[in-house]
Amino acid sequence: MLLLTPGPVQTHPSVRAAMAEDIAPWDASFHPFYARLRERIRVIAGGVEGEHVTLPLQGAGHMILEAAIRTYVAPGAAILVPMNGEYAVRLARLAREAGRQVVELPAPDTRGVQPAEVAAALAAHPQCGHLAMVQSETGSGIVNDPAAIGAVVRASGRRMILDAVSAFGALPLDLGAQPELDAVVFTSNKCLEGLPGFAFAVARVDSTQASAGNAGSWSLDLADVLANSREQGMGSLRFTGPVQTLRALDVALDRFDAEGGREPRLARYRANASALHRGLAALGLKPYLEEAEQGPIVVTVHQPSGLVLAEFVAALKRHGLTISSYFTTEAPSFRIGAIGDVGLEDMALALGAVAAALDELGLRCAA
Amino acid sequence: MLLLTPGPVQTHPSVRAAMAEDIAPWDASFHPFYARLRERIRVIAGGVEGEHVTLPLQGAGHMILEAAIRTYVAPGAAILVPMNGEYAVRLARLAREAGRQVVELPAPDTRGVQPAEVAAALAAHPQCGHLAMVQSETGSGIVNDPAAIGAVVRASGRRMILDAVSAFGALPLDLGAQPELDAVVFTSNKCLEGLPGFAFAVARVDSTQASAGNAGSWSLDLADVLANSREQGMGSLRFTGPVQTLRALDVALDRFDAEGGREPRLARYRANASALHRGLAALGLKPYLEEAEQGPIVVTVHQPSGLVLAEFVAALKRHGLTISSYFTTEAPSFRIGAIGDVGLEDMALALGAVAAALDELGLRCAA
Repeated sequence: MLLLTPGPVQTHPSVRAAMAEDIAPWDASFHPFYARLRERIRVIAGGVEGEHVTLPLQGAGHMILEAAIRTYVAPGAAILVPMNGEYAVRLARLAREAGRQVVELPAPDTRGVQPAEVAAALAAHPQCGHLAMVQSETGSGIVNDPAAIGAVVRASGRRMILDAVSAFGALPLDLGAQPELDAVVFTSNKCLEGLPGFAFAVARVDSTQASAGNAGSWSLDLADVLANSREQGMGSLRFTGPVQTLRALDVALDRFDAEGGREPRLARYRANASALHRGLAALGLKPYLEEAEQGPIVVTVHQPSGLVLAEFVAALKRHGLTISSYFTTEAPSFRIGAIGDVGLEDMALALGAVAAALDELGLRCAA
Repeated sequence: MLLLTPGPVQTHPSVRAAMAEDIAPWDASFHPFYARLRERIRVIAGGVEGEHVTLPLQGAGHMILEAAIRTYVAPGAAILVPMNGEYAVRLARLAREAGRQVVELPAPDTRGVQPAEVAAALAAHPQCGHLAMVQSETGSGIVNDPAAIGAVVRASGRRMILDAVSAFGALPLDLGAQPELDAVVFTSNKCLEGLPGFAFAVARVDSTQASAGNAGSWSLDLADVLANSREQGMGSLRFTGPVQTLRALDVALDRFDAEGGREPRLARYRANASALHRGLAALGLKPYLEEAEQGPIVVTVHQPSGLVLAEFVAALKRHGLTISSYFTTEAPSFRIGAIGDVGLEDMALALGAVAAALDELGLRCAA
């Protein structure tokens, strides 16, 4: 069975095999491993030694995003959020439930947000000390550009939090060049091609220390994660959690390095996405996005008339392909992930499964 | 290497092997598995169908405990906490950081808290609507009795939250007989002998629904976990997370059933703990607890004069045994776990390693 969702992704068997070990995370033998893993991740983010630090959190991407909002945005303070996808909607909700104010910048889910839009919104809402933005929206497949948007944030003297959950390790990011970024957050199970279970922030040391006392939650306090690291060492975990997934991630990072790092990985994903985009169009399906807006993480097409998503997903499974079973775009769509331990042969298999499923359901349109 | 800590525990290879699988938790194929796993856990807690529900949370035991406090105790409201161990100290801190008031009931770390002490404290502190208590303190090894303490809580018209992280699946608990319990919380990687990564509450449906709006955190809101289950089905996860550990837990529960359930498991742990207690005393080490207070989860002894814990732990490793590398008792101690996929042969190996390490370090005392 081929797994093509925007995550959890299909992983290499060696990554999964790394989890078959009992681990005592409090033990001295674990500390150097864990400290080194955190350093590897900081480097991928373009973080500067001494200036940036990897702050891990047990759980899901949602939790590290809430932790970042709670840590860097004071209770009652306001953030600006470009609303061009489902993950922006979630970000806004989690910030509000955490007692922060959210100013929504409306934007369609078919393109990245533009620097001029953000600049105007920041000017119109001086109460917003932070912009919080999703880098890759996996509902539609669009990408927001952190470098371009960050420049506007920087120029306006504001701070920024980046949700790179489905982007990190593939899409460009250079924390060292973006001092306005308090933190980027992401998980192990997307473009890093690890298993799910741990989430990470790579964050500014100064911002994080200055944010002590904001979080209102011990569990979700990144300032406390940092304080613990400084007191107990970078090899110290605050709490137990899915430590086996850290072993899997380490193997996944070996594979990342062996591939040549971020740029070759992005090139592979772009080739995958491009093959899907062309192939789905050749099957008569209408892309959800203009080609220029199509990101490399997930390819989304409009549902053809008559398609019932659950039936289509079940038919694809009979042909060996698992895709996401729901859509979050404004118009009904389905989507196929381009990320994970997969290449062009897998895209060909996926397109064959789509063709067969459409045929089976009598939904094949003329190209 | 034998792993004898109070968790994460040594697991059976079949439990670890169950994780070597990519999982799409949003997919229909995952839902019946997950719904069934939640039911299995409810039954172990003595939860009543329709009255109790299993509410999972990605992450660590600390997180589900914070989630339970945030959910069932309104912001600013007060809880009473018997302070007879390190996990009580943590509970008090996490509740305060979450904006709840904590009234501490002082108690020594060498015995379980007594019903009369709790009754007096509840009478003296009418502002405390809840008691929050740790069932098994793994610093010292003592056990607090939820049935006896719960009776006092019930008689006083208060509510209760039980931290059973290192107890659940072995020590007695019958939610059906304790209507004062809003929730019991625990993790997969202690007496259930699974891998770490998911935490669980088994909770009252009525209390949980009545608590909507309390949490001040989407991530840590058990009322939202329940609402999501009711809207999307019991097979629905709110967020991704270490789903592979759910497969491992399912295999671990098969082994729990094959062992005969909670009582035979407790009997095995009691035999382990008793062998450790006797064997360590025979080596001239002084038990931290009176025999009547010695719980079956972890056995703690005073550090003999001249012992440096890090050196002792390293020496034990050279003899094939990993134990906890720190202590949290009031007086310096070391501790050996009696839980996990281990039996009397393992206890004999452990005692042999302790004897050899003490000899090596010149610390062997006369018995």
